[in-house]
This record gives sequence, structure tokens and C-alpha cells, in this order.
Amino acid sequence: MSSPTSRGALISFEGGEGAGKSTVIAAAVAALQAQGLALCQVREPGGTIIGEAIREVLLKPEHRGLHAETELLLMMASRAQLVRERILPALAKGEWVIADRFTDASFAYQGGGRGIESGRIAELERWAAGLQPDLSFLLDLPVADGLKRASGRSAPDRIESESAVFFERVRSAYRQRAAQQPARWCVIDASQSAEAVAMEVTAALLRFVSARCERAT
Amino acid sequence: MSSPTSRGALISFEGGEGAGKSTVIAAAVAALQAQGLALCQVREPGGTIIGEAIREVLLKPEHRGLHAETELLLMMASRAQLVRERILPALAKGEWVIADRFTDASFAYQGGGRGIESGRIAELERWAAGLQPDLSFLLDLPVADGLKRASGRSAPDRIESESAVFFERVRSAYRQRAAQQPARWCVIDASQSAEAVAMEVTAALLRFVSARCERAT
Repeated sequence: MSSPTSRGALISFEGGEGAGKSTVIAAAVAALQAQGLALCQVREPGGTIIGEAIREVLLKPEHRGLHAETELLLMMASRAQLVRERILPALAKGEWVIADRFTDASFAYQGGGRGIESGRIAELERWAAGLQPDLSFLLDLPVADGLKRASGRSAPDRIESESAVFFERVRSAYRQRAAQQPARWCVIDASQSAEAVAMEVTAALLRFVSARCERAT
Repeated sequence: MSSPTSRGALISFEGGEGAGKSTVIAAAVAALQAQGLALCQVREPGGTIIGEAIREVLLKPEHRGLHAETELLLMMASRAQLVRERILPALAKGEWVIADRFTDASFAYQGGGRGIESGRIAELERWAAGLQPDLSFLLDLPVADGLKRASGRSAPDRIESESAVFFERVRSAYRQRAAQQPARWCVIDASQSAEAVAMEVTAALLRFVSARCERAT
């Protein structure tokens, strides 16, 4: 993934609707910058000019006829571009990459949510991305609470318009994934106050950074 | 592919720039319609509302930074949608599907042209499309002649702006593919007059149709 001399890492933030990812990412970025680390911030789908054009195709409410396989291939296309154009070059320079969602989101949304078998998603993951995060945060909270929080926002996009049953499947796929690879995941109870969540995340992040920097020296 | 009771088939037309696909396809469609056959005409990338939106992302001249893998995943996304939304339903109704390009184009353009290894393309072909044409026409002509013919058209898109060396690799990949599966391919010398090409294609097409209809009765 990152070269042996690099101290950077790929850190992803995952979670369902209304989990508070944006707030937590802002806090994480501030904490890492305060450590004097060079950062690269990306979001999925998107994060590049081409990825943002793909994001538009993906989220347009009129594209309701999009098949699950098409959706996953578009997500992977955006990710293939993001990895090659931004993530790999940043890691090569030793930067810390903060990703607002990465491949785990495909296992949760197109796998758990839309029913594509996880072995088939893993095939595309290897094809398109070829790397996994070094550390992933799952901001976990009951679906009803997340949807209530998210309901105050602007008009929902195509994926946000899905039913609560869909988001239950997304949540359970995320939790299952975290349980399968506990060394990589940090599961956070996102029903706490925004301040408590941010504190828990930044504490875990700084432990990870200091362990990694120790290993690299 | 098509069910045992269906008489339809998937027929693709392939070839480089300026090979005369549009003219030939119009002649083929007229010949099949004269036989009273039900047709479904599609083009790639595109052929569905979502596919046309993907086509725009693919062909925009400003998207010059598109990586080869991203390009192939987008092509496959458009194809996954086309197969599920139009081709499979048409074949199920016994229609004849006339495709202006299909998966072979990926082996030629992203394989031969951009250097993605053909085994990796075949992986995505199985994942996204899951079917191959029953009959494929390759309109083959020297690259210089094709580019000369195509130069009279409107401003070139991102792929049309490639170099002659790129198109030589595309041509040679197409010819190699046709040589590997001779039973499926019909290679046409597209440097002949448009009338001669159309006559050769429609003759081969009608032989295929009558053989298929005999088998089905």
C-alpha cells in the first residue's frame, strides 16, 4: 500500500445517512493538522473532476432505472480514478489521506443494500482499487436516528431516497464488515453528542498516528 | 443467451474510426426489416438514458486525465445497463438486437489501444455483460483511410483525438480477436465502396438469419 519509508496512511470514514461524517472528518483533519502532518482529503463518489461527473450520474433522482450492477461499476470507476489520480500519489509523498467513504461503502450499499454478493464486489475491488484503508472508522447509529438527523437537509438524492429497510441492510453490512476485520476498524457509537464522537475519533486517530510514526522511525 | 424458443440474436458491428459503421448498420436494419423481423437497435457507449449520461463523461474532450481503468469501468457500466435494460428483454421477446459496438470494442480500444491486459478485460466482461454476440461484423480498413474519411466530421471527441499509432493498435486487436473466434466473426474489407460493403454485409446477415430460423423450426 504505502511504501516502507512513507509515514502516511489511508484512513476512511464510513457510516449511514445522518451519522455525522462531515463533522467528525472536520475534527479529524484539524487534529492531524495540529500534529503538522501533510493531508490529502477526498470524498466518494467524486474527489476528482471526472469522479464528480460520475457522481452526478449516480445521484440524479431521474436515474431511478439504474441497475445495481451499473451503480457498482460507476462507483468503482470513480474510485479507480480517485486512487490513481490522488490517493496513490499522496501516499507516495508520505501524506495522510482522509477519505469520506471508500470501498467498504460498496459492500454496505451495493452489497447489503442492493443484494450484490460480496465475493463479486471483492472481485471489482481488486480490479479497480487494489488497496484497502489502513484504518476505518464506522460511525454507527440506529437507522431511524440517522434518517431523522438527515431529514433537515436539502432534497434527497437518488440513494438518500431509499427506504428505511434498505438502510437497515446497509447498517448491518457495515457492522458485519467491521466485525470481520476488527484490527482495521474502529466502531464509534454515533448516537452520542457530536463533541463526544469527535473526541473519541480524534483520540483513536492520534493513537494510530503515534504508533505508526514510532514504527517508521 | 437467447432462450431456446427465441429466434432472435445479438449482432454487433465493430470497426475503427471512419469504417462506415452507420451506413452499414442502416443497410442491415433495412434488410432485416424487409424479412419482417422484430428489431432492437442499440449503440455503445450509450443506448439508455443512463448510458448516454455515461457516454458524455467518457467522450468530453476536457476529461483528458481519465485513466484507462476508469475508462473501461465506465464502458462496462454503460454496457451493464444496456444489457439489463434493453438487450436481455429484447432477446427474451425473440427480437434481433443490432448493436453499434459491444464488448469487443473494449478489447480493441482499452486493450489494444490503452494496453489493459485482455484477461483483465475478460474478467469485467463476465462481471458486467455476461453475454457475447452471436455474430459480429468487423469493418476493417487501413487506419489512414479511416481517419481521412472521419476527418470531414464535427470536432473530434476525447477518443477520436487519439493518434494514428493508437488506432493501429486498435485495428490490430480487432483483427486478432476476429482470428481467434472465426465462427463468430465476419471480417469485411471496408475499403470497398459503401455499396459493395453493404451488399457483402447484408448477404452474410441473411445467410445467418436463414440458418438460425431453420434451426429454430
